[in-house]
Parts: sequence; C-alpha cells; structure tokens
Amino acid sequence: MDKNTIKKIEAIVGAKHLATAGEDLMCYSYDGTGMEFMPDAVAFPGSAAEICFIMELANQELFPVIPRGAGTGMTGGSLPVRGGLVLATSRLNKILEIDTENQVAVVEPGLITGQFQAAVRKEGLYYPPDPASSDFCTMGGNVAECSGGPSAVKYGVTRDYVLGLEVILPDGSLMHTGVRTAKGVVGYDLTRLFIGSEGTLGIISKIVVRLIALPSHKKTFLVLTENLHQATVLVSEILKSGIIPKTLEYMDGTALSVVNDYLPLDLPQRTRALLLIEVDGDDKSTAEQGEKLLELLADRKKYPSILEVKQAKNESEVENLWKARKSISPATFKLRPHKISEDVVVPRSKIPLLVDFTEKLSQELGIVILTFGHAGDGNIHVNIMVDKDNRDENDKGREAQKKLFNHVMTLNGTLSGEHGVGITKAPFLSLELDETSLALMGKIKLLFDPNNILNPGKIFT
Amino acid sequence: MDKNTIKKIEAIVGAKHLATAGEDLMCYSYDGTGMEFMPDAVAFPGSAAEICFIMELANQELFPVIPRGAGTGMTGGSLPVRGGLVLATSRLNKILEIDTENQVAVVEPGLITGQFQAAVRKEGLYYPPDPASSDFCTMGGNVAECSGGPSAVKYGVTRDYVLGLEVILPDGSLMHTGVRTAKGVVGYDLTRLFIGSEGTLGIISKIVVRLIALPSHKKTFLVLTENLHQATVLVSEILKSGIIPKTLEYMDGTALSVVNDYLPLDLPQRTRALLLIEVDGDDKSTAEQGEKLLELLADRKKYPSILEVKQAKNESEVENLWKARKSISPATFKLRPHKISEDVVVPRSKIPLLVDFTEKLSQELGIVILTFGHAGDGNIHVNIMVDKDNRDENDKGREAQKKLFNHVMTLNGTLSGEHGVGITKAPFLSLELDETSLALMGKIKLLFDPNNILNPGKIFT
Repeated sequence: MDKNTIKKIEAIVGAKHLATAGEDLMCYSYDGTGMEFMPDAVAFPGSAAEICFIMELANQELFPVIPRGAGTGMTGGSLPVRGGLVLATSRLNKILEIDTENQVAVVEPGLITGQFQAAVRKEGLYYPPDPASSDFCTMGGNVAECSGGPSAVKYGVTRDYVLGLEVILPDGSLMHTGVRTAKGVVGYDLTRLFIGSEGTLGIISKIVVRLIALPSHKKTFLVLTENLHQATVLVSEILKSGIIPKTLEYMDGTALSVVNDYLPLDLPQRTRALLLIEVDGDDKSTAEQGEKLLELLADRKKYPSILEVKQAKNESEVENLWKARKSISPATFKLRPHKISEDVVVPRSKIPLLVDFTEKLSQELGIVILTFGHAGDGNIHVNIMVDKDNRDENDKGREAQKKLFNHVMTLNGTLSGEHGVGITKAPFLSLELDETSLALMGKIKLLFDPNNILNPGKIFT
Repeated sequence: MDKNTIKKIEAIVGAKHLATAGEDLMCYSYDGTGMEFMPDAVAFPGSAAEICFIMELANQELFPVIPRGAGTGMTGGSLPVRGGLVLATSRLNKILEIDTENQVAVVEPGLITGQFQAAVRKEGLYYPPDPASSDFCTMGGNVAECSGGPSAVKYGVTRDYVLGLEVILPDGSLMHTGVRTAKGVVGYDLTRLFIGSEGTLGIISKIVVRLIALPSHKKTFLVLTENLHQATVLVSEILKSGIIPKTLEYMDGTALSVVNDYLPLDLPQRTRALLLIEVDGDDKSTAEQGEKLLELLADRKKYPSILEVKQAKNESEVENLWKARKSISPATFKLRPHKISEDVVVPRSKIPLLVDFTEKLSQELGIVILTFGHAGDGNIHVNIMVDKDNRDENDKGREAQKKLFNHVMTLNGTLSGEHGVGITKAPFLSLELDETSLALMGKIKLLFDPNNILNPGKIFT
C-alpha cells in the first residue's frame, strides 16, 4: 500500500485511528496459530459507514482488507497473509440493545463475548456459545468462525443463536440479513451463509442474537479413570442414558500433566483421563440428572477403570476446574515450542477409535500428541506438539496431521468443528468436500468479492 | 415441451414413471394455496442419477423443472407456473439409515414426515419439526421450505435438525453438503443456503438429520378465555415465568367456531380464544412445569378473562385436540370459498398488538379474518377469507393483506415464519428485504441456475 492510499484511509477513520508504525503493526500480525504476517496498516473504524468507505477505496486501489476481532483464531483467519489493511473492530464494541421481553440482543462485532454473557446474565438471560477464549474473543469473530465451546453439546453453536446481521459487502454496500423474530424464512438464508465464512464474504457490523432463560441450577462432576479408551466409552454411555449434559469435556493424561498446577485436586498417579461433566436446568431436573449420572458411574464392575468420581463443592472449585480446562491450549507449549492444533469431529461413538488411533500414531512417530475437548459432541482437540526448527520432528508432525485427517474421514468425521479452515486447513479441503461443492464455494466467493480484496488467501488455496 | 423432449424423459425414468395424460397432470397442478397451473408432464425418478440426467436434459432443451413433494405448500412453491416438468419425489421415500447410537438418520426426500417421526419414535428418538400437514408432507418439501410447526417454540425448525444434504444442482451435477457430526464448519454453509431456498437452487436427493432423545413425559393443557387480547398477553406471561413449553398454540373465536365439532369439550358461549399448551421432558421437570403453569393460571384476579383451565386426561383427548388444531386451515373454507393465508411473525410481546390490529381490520373492511397458530414464537397464521369471484371482497382481501404486511414491518416482524415466499408473497419481498440483499439473492439464483430452469418464477417476481 502506498502513502497516498494510507492518507486516504486516514481521511476516513482519522489519524488517531490508524496505525502504521512497525511496533503497532506487530501487534496485529499474529493470532492463535503463532504464525506472523505483517500488515501495511491497521484501521480502527468507528462506524459501519467508515467500513463502507474503506471497502470502496479498497476496490479502487485493490489492497487486501482483513477483518480482525481479538485475533484468537486457531487457523489463521485474521492473518494478513498478503499484507494490506487490517480492519480491527475494537472500537465497535457496544451492546446496542437487550430486549429482555423477547429475549433478543443487538451487539457490535468488537464486543467481547464474555462481557456480553455477563451483561445478559444480569438480566436472567443466557447466551450459550462459550469458546475457551471467551474472556478475550469477540462476537464478530465468533460469528465469522461459527464458534462453539463446551456448552455446544446441549445448547448448540454460534449459528444457532444468530438471528440476523448487518453486513458490509466487499463492494462497500451495506445490507441486512435475517430477522429479529424466533422464525423467518423470507428469501435465501444469507445470515448463515455469512456465519462461518471467515471474513471472506462480508464484514459484520451488527449482530442480532437470540437469548434463552438462564438455567437456575448447575452441578459439576469430575471423573478420573486410569484408561483413556474407557473414559471415552463412558461418554457414549452417559449420553445413551438420556442425560443431556451442559458440558461433557475430557482431557487425556498428557493434557492433565500440563495443567496439573491449576487442578483443584491431587490426581492419583494412575490417572490417564479426566471427564468434566456439568448438568444444568431447573432445581429438580438438575438434581435428577446428577443422581442419574452418579448412579451410572457407581457401577464399578462395568467401569473398572474409574478411579474417582467427585462433585465440585463450591463455585471456586468449579472456577478452578474451568481455569484448568481453558489453560490446556496455551499450557501445551511447556511440552514443545510449536504445535499443529486440530479440532476434528467424529460421530461420538467413534471417539474411542479416534483416541486409540492418535495414541498409536504418537508412539509410531515418536512425537507428543495430546487430545482433549468436547467429547459430548465428538469434537476432539488434537494437539500435535513439535519443534519446527527440528526438521525431522516438523516432518513427523505434518505426517501425523495428514494421517489424522485421513483417519477422521474414514470415521465419517469432519476436519473442523469450530476453528474453521483459515490457512492451516486450506490444503486439506478436498479431503472432505467434493469437487462440485468446492467449485461452487469458489464461485460464491467470486460473486461476493470479484476483486478478491476481502481476506484473500483464506479457506481456498 | 415437445414430444421429442417427453420421449427423452421417458427414456430416463421409464414409461411407467412418467405421466402426460390430462387427468394425471391435474393431480400435480395445485397445492395448499388452491391455485392451479398445469404441468406438461410429471416424472417420478427412482434415483438421484435419474434426476441428474433430467437436469442435464432440461439445460439442453430449456424446459422448467419443478420439484414437488406432497404439494402441501401454502405459497405456491411447487406449482408449475410456467408449465414444464413436475419432478415428483414420491418414489424416493426410504429411510436409508437410523444410527441410534449417534442419533443421526439419513432419509430420501419423498419420505412422509409423520412416517419418519413414527419410525424414530420406535427407537426412543425424536425428530421435532411437525408442520400441521405432517401426515402428508415430505421431508424434502420440509427442507426446501424450512418448515416449522407447533414444537418450534421449544425445539426449533427444520433448519435446526438438518446436518447435511445430497443435492443435484440445476446443471445436473451431484454434490454433498454438511456433515454427519454434531458440529462442522468446513467451507461455506451450503446446507443452510439450500434449506428454505424453495427448490430454486437445487433438488434435494438425500437428507442427513440429527435426532434427539424422545422426552419421556408430556402434559397437555387447555385455557379458555373470553378475550383474545388477554389470551395473547398470557402467552408472554407464561414464557416470562421460565416455563419453556413444547407447544404454545392459540386459536381465536372464529377459528374455534370452524373446528367446534372436533373439540373434545363444550365451549362456554363466551369463549373468544383458546390456548393449547404442552410441556414435556423427564418425569420430574414435566410435573414441575405443569404445576408452575397451573399456579400462574390460578391467579384469576390478574387474569379475569380466563373461563376455564383444563388438563387433557388421556391420549385420546390429546389426539382430538390436535385433530381440531390441524383441521383449522382446511375447515376455514366453511366460511368463505377462498382465503389469503399468511404466516407472519412478530416479536412475541407484540402479538397482542397484532391481533388487535387484525380484529380492527376485519371490522373496518367488513371481511372475515381469523388468526391462530404458534403464539409461543410469535408466528401467527392470519387467514383472510374471501370469495374471489366477488370482486369487491377480493379487493378488500388484498387491501387487508397489504395493510397486514405493512403493520408487521412496523412491529419488527417478518412476512413468513414457515410457509416461504413462493409466488404469493413474492410481490411483497421488498417490504422486508433491502435492495442490496434482494439483488444479491438474485445473483445467487443466477449463479446456481444460469438458464433459470429450476422452479422458475418463485421467490423473485
């Protein structure tokens, strides 16, 4: 981008809201992948109108525009891989409306998800999608990636809560999609076409979400087992029993070892897996589900590998458990300096097969692979740990990734449950999508963004 | 369509599976709107491959192809408005798989929704979307229209249960969308772009749906009131109390009068509205919700217009209630020979305003307007009854429709919650959708179907 172009952007957003110095650009050059690409400039627009002007300019002068929330993405969705202008949504961070009577809210894209959840909780309402990064990530980023989280097993993902959007198209025009009502089927479902499109089809400037009543009760349980395979079999058994947990997370032995300091209990030495189970609802149904769960877990003849079943006694124990769970991803770097982070999904009855496979793969290749995540919906976080500067280890990591993806396909799974494609999964898209489908997606991208200026290089290679 | 073309279609599907005689064509000329358009031929393909060949041929010879399930649609989505070939899915009616462990099923488009629900119920599973026509309508039609039904207030609509699709594109190529897993975010969400696209973007040949555990208990309640406005206020009060009903339907006095014969109780003469409320779940939570509801309704000081609260005593009373509810739409023709049938949605706190408006409109214009439907999610069926051969009455009906739509827009509502646009709502699209959004939808249609041969004349005027 030349100086003249930068001047024009400055005229749109104001000098105060444009960064061009190297040390500032640095802060917007990376995301959760640990990869780095320097942008030419970072703009902090204060209104949808300013975004419209920026996109108009980008089409005239043909520079890439990369929308960015908090940069917590795991697949490179917000990285300026071809330089250009990072469009940070941090100033567009307001809750515009909480309509308690109709359980609907309208927010701006830069609003932090956790702050939004806290605000609606005060009104007795609940916005369930809860990615592990919810203290930092933004609503706009969540919509762009269709984020999930531990609550998805019972409550669904971002897609299930967004009713409508205000979007700025790549050509600078502003449009509205969807509704403010519980139902709506007028015209094509553009709302859900934008959700999960990873900032390649439009820039989200307003989000209308539905809320639900905040469940009044919750119980949190921990199950320790000395065998990972059996822990994952237990997942299926719990779900088959009719319990619909709010959360059914697991961590394997390696994941446990990296967050041991945070855990609010001493693990027996033989512990090889932990299940974190929460049930919620009204008073009676929470109690009933809790009892049902404890009854099922009491059958130690059927489940001999269970070492211990604990119920969290108070809110601080629950908080510590979640702190441990949310710390896994960053804490893995204790093991090796880099990782290949995957979030594959398999039908949940296939989880035992998947964890057996990853354990074997780790042994075969002699590299560290840990697994944890949302067992209840089959969405498993597989972290392949490597030192990228060690060429042999890096190659083995890549080999493990390929073998993992191929295996997931044989299990009727998908390459990503919530992280999206970005740049890290783009080379593998044809494993999952047929040629016709891929070609159609490419044509849709071209239809929306003929000059390929909005977040270029993402999803498609 | 000339004879030569018909011969070629016959070669694809076989003579047994092609209808060209006038009396046969007649059966495929109408739908739930009561409008009639004669097709040139009706094909009954027996496989996805046959559909591919038909679409290839249609592109060569440029005849319209109109996919059709059971023809129960309310907006003309399956009508051959420009002649051409009706593609009936009735032979593609199999349940291909019910995976009880992962709560996933794969079905063909011509399968009757009610039959599918019965089949999964036998396995202790539940497929919630339940349009009033569920005994006749098909899964493919439900996906094409994104059907809802009384259970949507708690369980959502068709969109919320479809995981993936097999689709034949207008050019005859076959593709797969979506996943078989609980989550999936790889590439653009084509699954939901096809859902609700009313057969204009592709022909659905396979549907992967998720199922949920069948709730073990259900209770059904009836509330009679002498005032429609207060009945709809009650809807908001019930939902605000934290009860999440499986069903919260209402019928106004006129709707009640047309189905009186079916109702399993004598209505007090002053009855002007009926609420049909169901709660479900496990034993304890169903009981708790039922008690909470009865407690709320017992406050007759606050709700003086309540005449009677009844609980259905047995399954046959429940069945009769539903028979009455499902009979409203066809029974309205007792009143006048034709109707303008709308399914607008408003934020549920606005329902009292909407019913006040329709009552006033009916008085002002001197025509019969009845309302009933899914009060719990604000999706109100407004039936404007007219004799189309009475020009004055017909004009008044059209005037009422326009005024209704405009009023719904001022209430932040939508023109359709579950019936779609088809041909009947197409002229009003710009009331709800902005120019940019409409233009984009038109371009998407053109991208998928450059020759405009798949269900032409629908959604867009």
